[in-house]
Amino acid sequence: MNGAQALIRTLVDSGVEVCFTNPGTSEMHFVAALDSVPEMRGVLALFEGVATGAADGYARMAGKPAATLLHLGSGLGNGIANLHNARRAHSPVVNIVGDHATYHLGFDPPLASDIDSIVRGVSSWVRRCERTGEVGRDAADAVAAAFGPPGQVATLVLPADVSWSEGAEPDASIPHAAPAAVDEEAISQAAKALTSGVPSALLIGGSAMRREGLEAADRVARATGAKLLAETFPARLERGAGIPGVERLGYLAEFMSLQLDGIRQLVLVGAKAPVSFFAYPGKESYLVPDGCEVLTLAEAGQDVVAALTRLAGAVGAGGEERGASKEAGKLERPSGALTAESFAAAVAVVLPEGAIISDESNTSGLFLSGATAGCPPHDVLTLTGGAIGQGLPVGTGAAVACPDRPVLCLEADGSAMYTIQALWTQAREGLNVTTVILNNRSYAVLNMELNRVGVEVPGPTAKRMLDLCGPEIDFVGLARAMGVPATSVERADELASVLEQSIGEDGPHLIEAMVPSII
Amino acid sequence: MNGAQALIRTLVDSGVEVCFTNPGTSEMHFVAALDSVPEMRGVLALFEGVATGAADGYARMAGKPAATLLHLGSGLGNGIANLHNARRAHSPVVNIVGDHATYHLGFDPPLASDIDSIVRGVSSWVRRCERTGEVGRDAADAVAAAFGPPGQVATLVLPADVSWSEGAEPDASIPHAAPAAVDEEAISQAAKALTSGVPSALLIGGSAMRREGLEAADRVARATGAKLLAETFPARLERGAGIPGVERLGYLAEFMSLQLDGIRQLVLVGAKAPVSFFAYPGKESYLVPDGCEVLTLAEAGQDVVAALTRLAGAVGAGGEERGASKEAGKLERPSGALTAESFAAAVAVVLPEGAIISDESNTSGLFLSGATAGCPPHDVLTLTGGAIGQGLPVGTGAAVACPDRPVLCLEADGSAMYTIQALWTQAREGLNVTTVILNNRSYAVLNMELNRVGVEVPGPTAKRMLDLCGPEIDFVGLARAMGVPATSVERADELASVLEQSIGEDGPHLIEAMVPSII
Repeated sequence: MNGAQALIRTLVDSGVEVCFTNPGTSEMHFVAALDSVPEMRGVLALFEGVATGAADGYARMAGKPAATLLHLGSGLGNGIANLHNARRAHSPVVNIVGDHATYHLGFDPPLASDIDSIVRGVSSWVRRCERTGEVGRDAADAVAAAFGPPGQVATLVLPADVSWSEGAEPDASIPHAAPAAVDEEAISQAAKALTSGVPSALLIGGSAMRREGLEAADRVARATGAKLLAETFPARLERGAGIPGVERLGYLAEFMSLQLDGIRQLVLVGAKAPVSFFAYPGKESYLVPDGCEVLTLAEAGQDVVAALTRLAGAVGAGGEERGASKEAGKLERPSGALTAESFAAAVAVVLPEGAIISDESNTSGLFLSGATAGCPPHDVLTLTGGAIGQGLPVGTGAAVACPDRPVLCLEADGSAMYTIQALWTQAREGLNVTTVILNNRSYAVLNMELNRVGVEVPGPTAKRMLDLCGPEIDFVGLARAMGVPATSVERADELASVLEQSIGEDGPHLIEAMVPSII
Repeated sequence: MNGAQALIRTLVDSGVEVCFTNPGTSEMHFVAALDSVPEMRGVLALFEGVATGAADGYARMAGKPAATLLHLGSGLGNGIANLHNARRAHSPVVNIVGDHATYHLGFDPPLASDIDSIVRGVSSWVRRCERTGEVGRDAADAVAAAFGPPGQVATLVLPADVSWSEGAEPDASIPHAAPAAVDEEAISQAAKALTSGVPSALLIGGSAMRREGLEAADRVARATGAKLLAETFPARLERGAGIPGVERLGYLAEFMSLQLDGIRQLVLVGAKAPVSFFAYPGKESYLVPDGCEVLTLAEAGQDVVAALTRLAGAVGAGGEERGASKEAGKLERPSGALTAESFAAAVAVVLPEGAIISDESNTSGLFLSGATAGCPPHDVLTLTGGAIGQGLPVGTGAAVACPDRPVLCLEADGSAMYTIQALWTQAREGLNVTTVILNNRSYAVLNMELNRVGVEVPGPTAKRMLDLCGPEIDFVGLARAMGVPATSVERADELASVLEQSIGEDGPHLIEAMVPSII
């Protein structure tokens, strides 16, 4: 078999079953080989940022990597923003970048560029496949590297001739490395700190954001009186009725400082010490309060959930205690014009059990977390790396991973336009994704940031760089043009009804929700 | 003044008058500073690939750089594909990439990534602004570097605090370096070769593709009997009635080999020795015929046009001779169903003098060059680097550079979808751009390439990765949703009429031309 066939066969044998792709000529043998390994599902994207974001969303929900297939340095470039988000999410991704044939590169053909340099910005594991006979091993190594732990973007650069040459064999899959156990010393230090009576907080993130981790963290917090906080942008957060709730640190540094005020000991569990998302003139970057001691119980690559469970034991937390999540009460159907509040209420009132929310609602989503806290159990995938244009692709990949669960993309208008091509893939694959575009005709977050960085009276040119009027974007038209049924709504009750219907029907839908800016 | 103000003022004083931007929080002071330097025109793009492609198109037509303004490593990533094309076009671009504040980077905030590594793939001149007091100098140096010669992407990485701090001053502009003269030895060697009686060809590219260079090259070819050939993908080609025509090397290696068959001496003038665009199993990469001697008269950074003129003198070409361009005859208006041929005829029949064609028509454009050879003088901008998604952004930038000239984007459907957001910028800026989408519902070039790389009977999965059916994309709907009036046509006479009308009206238009695939 040729290199491409051995590569795909090894991927499939290693559990990689989906390839999100936007291929070019140098990847044609990989594309052709898809037919020889029918267990691999190829999903076409019209733009590489859709492919990489979908691989991220898939990994967050499937707990294992998908592959991407990108065309040379320029295709990789188009995929970088969402690879960046995947990197920050610790999502395992096998990122395959086709390259010119090995002997062709020396001629510097027009599409040649420095792939190895470009990819270093988002991928710490990079291997260039040098020989066809070793492609199977390279693929198995890439899958193992992607798993980590922690998960990461593992990049295989695949020259065309290595792909098309004969003489390859698939390689055996490599058992995934288990996350390293936290040593006893770290457990006892954290236990000692949390039971010392000094005002403390537990800051959790990563795999601690799933039910088991949240329950253990909640038990620790309740037994010790420590404040329970979570990272701002979790890759995957399980929440809703019956799951202990957790207060996420705010996006705004001012808000984060308030949340951490008075804390003298901060125990990190799969999360990093809090820093401001951006720097602002005269403001602190590092947001741990002065004099607060920082202890690390477990880092991202370690067995975070086991560490929390052991910590619960060490602080004498009772096994019978249960977290104080909001109970699913009867929510009232919102009415009247859409606002950020009534938008959140409309989502909350219809959100079904098992829903997956891909949340890139930005400023318009301010009230979402509060409104949906008591909803039936669901998952929330957030903008881990801050590179906008994540929401639609991540929702697309999540729907491929979980065909039986409804996916809800809550998407700001400005952000949606970076990767709007995702709608086409949703239509082609018949994915059960409902996208709500929060259309405020503005980069609202930037209007806020303009003020926060100290520009008090922006001039007309600056303001024009941040508004999305003139022309107004018609998201219903965009969706329909890519094969996705769409509706525009201006009232909260209407949103709830259309949402309910869309979630209940197969295939993708888009709802343009005209929500005025909160800024 | 602050760093951002000094930066923009220096740019303007150095002749940089347009900034194509998609900014984020770290660039807010630059955005705010636009109001303090009204000579700088800010043009907002909804996606960075539009901004970088527009800067490329602007540079090709204005002969000087625009600035970009991109947000961190992820915004840079989104812009890489078209920066790659700009690099291959030798377009001068001042590529400004905002970064976190210098002191903030050490905290590894979510949006931090290795900008310096990512940018190296497309920019050989990179400077990180370290101090506010030096920003003016950095900006002047960047403009000088962008000019080259040859032109290049010069990248300034601008940390937020360097931008917002006070104490900066604009710096004086730096005179552009003139292209180096070719030494006499190269002229006489080329003259000797071309007059030796050995079958020879002149392969021209870069700045030789403008009228003056073409006239000189044509005189040389006519005086010596050398074959006159041009590079496949020129950044800017002047052509039409009264301008000597030139045969461009084909995209397909097979075709290129035919064009070069029998040539024993190849003289390069601002062009590189011909290589295959991609590698194919068992085919040559380097397409200079065996035994053919390659001489370089002038490289891209040298004074290519002067060298050609001197060469014309050295070979004794008469000053009075004029190139044998096709004369503008009365073209017949095509009729019947659209085909690749009748599409080309429809463009030819309406093409006005001074039109600028941004050509990313790919397979559907096969007959374009022949059909339009005798049209009134016009410019053609081609896909220099092969990174698709160039056509709409380059056309957008060309229209900003040349507000009095009609721009025609001839755009393949698959390629259009990478940077379709360009339509919104065209609408916002009221640019006189007519986009023709050649809709064959397929990545037709890849269907051809699949066969050329040796896949003879592609399976259904492979074929599905290359077709754009299911769902079919409605380009009229996409355009209207972004504020661009649009029409779909299926007949050649209809295309000619709608084209004529669209070109004659102000503002952007889109025409979806249903042209069956030639593959």
